[in-house]
Amino acid sequence: MNAQAAETEAMRRALALAATPGVPLGPNPRVGCVILSPAGEVLAEGHHRGAGTAHAEADALARARAAGIDVTGATAVVTLEPCNHTGRTGPCAQALLEAGVARVVHAQADPNPVAAGGARTLRDAGVEVESGLLVEEARALNEVWTFAVEHGRPFVTWKLAATIDGRSAAPDGTSRWVSSTASRRDTHRLRALADTMMVGTGTILDDDPLLTVRDDDGHPLPHQPLRAVMGLREVPATKRVLNDDAETVLLRTRDPHEALAELYARDRQHVFLEGGPTLAGAFLRAGLVDEIVCYTAPFLLGAGRSAVADLGIGTIAEAYRPRVVDVAVLEPVVEGETPDVRFTLRTDGLAAGPRAAEGE
Amino acid sequence: MNAQAAETEAMRRALALAATPGVPLGPNPRVGCVILSPAGEVLAEGHHRGAGTAHAEADALARARAAGIDVTGATAVVTLEPCNHTGRTGPCAQALLEAGVARVVHAQADPNPVAAGGARTLRDAGVEVESGLLVEEARALNEVWTFAVEHGRPFVTWKLAATIDGRSAAPDGTSRWVSSTASRRDTHRLRALADTMMVGTGTILDDDPLLTVRDDDGHPLPHQPLRAVMGLREVPATKRVLNDDAETVLLRTRDPHEALAELYARDRQHVFLEGGPTLAGAFLRAGLVDEIVCYTAPFLLGAGRSAVADLGIGTIAEAYRPRVVDVAVLEPVVEGETPDVRFTLRTDGLAAGPRAAEGE
Repeated sequence: MNAQAAETEAMRRALALAATPGVPLGPNPRVGCVILSPAGEVLAEGHHRGAGTAHAEADALARARAAGIDVTGATAVVTLEPCNHTGRTGPCAQALLEAGVARVVHAQADPNPVAAGGARTLRDAGVEVESGLLVEEARALNEVWTFAVEHGRPFVTWKLAATIDGRSAAPDGTSRWVSSTASRRDTHRLRALADTMMVGTGTILDDDPLLTVRDDDGHPLPHQPLRAVMGLREVPATKRVLNDDAETVLLRTRDPHEALAELYARDRQHVFLEGGPTLAGAFLRAGLVDEIVCYTAPFLLGAGRSAVADLGIGTIAEAYRPRVVDVAVLEPVVEGETPDVRFTLRTDGLAAGPRAAEGE
Repeated sequence: MNAQAAETEAMRRALALAATPGVPLGPNPRVGCVILSPAGEVLAEGHHRGAGTAHAEADALARARAAGIDVTGATAVVTLEPCNHTGRTGPCAQALLEAGVARVVHAQADPNPVAAGGARTLRDAGVEVESGLLVEEARALNEVWTFAVEHGRPFVTWKLAATIDGRSAAPDGTSRWVSSTASRRDTHRLRALADTMMVGTGTILDDDPLLTVRDDDGHPLPHQPLRAVMGLREVPATKRVLNDDAETVLLRTRDPHEALAELYARDRQHVFLEGGPTLAGAFLRAGLVDEIVCYTAPFLLGAGRSAVADLGIGTIAEAYRPRVVDVAVLEPVVEGETPDVRFTLRTDGLAAGPRAAEGE
């Protein structure tokens, strides 16, 4: 096997290490590292396990040290550009230099201006640095983290559930259940992928949701996303969202930009928006919805709460048409229930409204 | 092969003959007939080709005669109970008697009170009659005809196309196109299965539709359904529905029962309802929609025409929940278009409205 093939294989292994299930919890990206000898043999492996623990490079170096393996002149293959800053752990670029590594191959360049510069530090010290090997796979591994760092705000998934005539509640406000058991379980699965659940104060006052993530049996998962309630109305202390089941933050604003800035300042990277039509409309018009997950239930209400508020669209050419990435039929898991359809759309930054049609 | 197996095989052949593509045009059921010798050999076959032509039994008898085959003592296997009435052709029961047939096996009993009685006539004359062999297959073959005859009105398919937020047109009334090219082609395929297209006068005045059935290239099919326009508003002579592309009838009523009665009197068995939300709502509340075909398009309008008018439903328990028989993703056939979903529902006579939840 030539050097290039060995490095590609090592990068695939590093990607697999990075994707180790269950880690990292918290705001850090998934990173894996494999250290190769000049002959292309694997000397050590490592991966990051979450905030406060060693970075992938430090983990691999520590394992090599513990095994009495000399990495002088070795190649470090790592899924993300080594960091240059001193956070809770020391900078990885420095650690690689001190270990005597001669070459670094990384996939994704660090999109974070605070952490970036590791490649330059290494090059300036005479280390050979190559960037971009399997970069698409590496970006996909940390898609939401990459988005959040590049955009300086959390990625926003808006979830809605509506009947085929677009109603998310009956005229009296009742909405249990518009979607099927299969859809609700699917929603909890998606909630668990986010670090923040968001609704507006109106939803809290009207529906008093718990906003926790539960398993198929209805039991809360051990790790719960942050619950964020946005708006200026008072939230009575008796509301379930203020109980001890999970942490809750009240965002005292009506401006989606402000709400997301506050959440990003709290290291939040993925907001799962389940607010009412007005809140969703504000995010859509601001171009601050990145993904739409819509559960369509095949029945009719004829009246009641619309799934989304007026978006200012006047004519069909202005319709808000995100890119469709997936359409799935969710077969019933409970006897007598009907299949729902889940549409997954990506907006690619598109804002909803009358000007969207003009490409502005 | 014993007699029973021979008759079952003959019935399958008769069902296949009945299902000969392209016939019958018009209001008559599809019927096939196979005549077996007492030893179980096929003597002759026949099927019905449409109003004004021979019934299946008469067709088979004529073929036997033409081939010089004696059917005395034979068994006639026929998909539908032989008719007893003299319409444009003579009664089949009488023809079978005169031909000397000794035994008749039919699948479906004739649901038509005018035509029924053939089995009794044959039995009274000493012919052995057996009913019900492969009856489900035979009913399925003429599902809409059977429904119409049994209910004394046409079967009604309501077609709607809406966005995931339940809008069938933008606020300015524009709706070209809410559904994709794939959905529109699918709609034309379904229109061609009906004998009547129905809208309200409001749709004619607002949208001026042509209401013809076209192939994938947009060319009208040679055989067009009747165009029915329901309502009390005047239809100007300039409207496209009044052109010569197909026959048009104006139903001067707002009552769905009256409209369907008038169409049934014109031998119409399958109405494809494409009216606006108010017309659809009237049919739904009257329990006069039998099938719902909903095309859901994965984009948002936020405002505009709702897919259906208020159904009088006040709370979620009263939601109108027909049986879901099919959910299909219609992949785009034109580059850049998105997949729509087609839901096919059967109402089984359920009426929409506040009392539906109480089972009334």
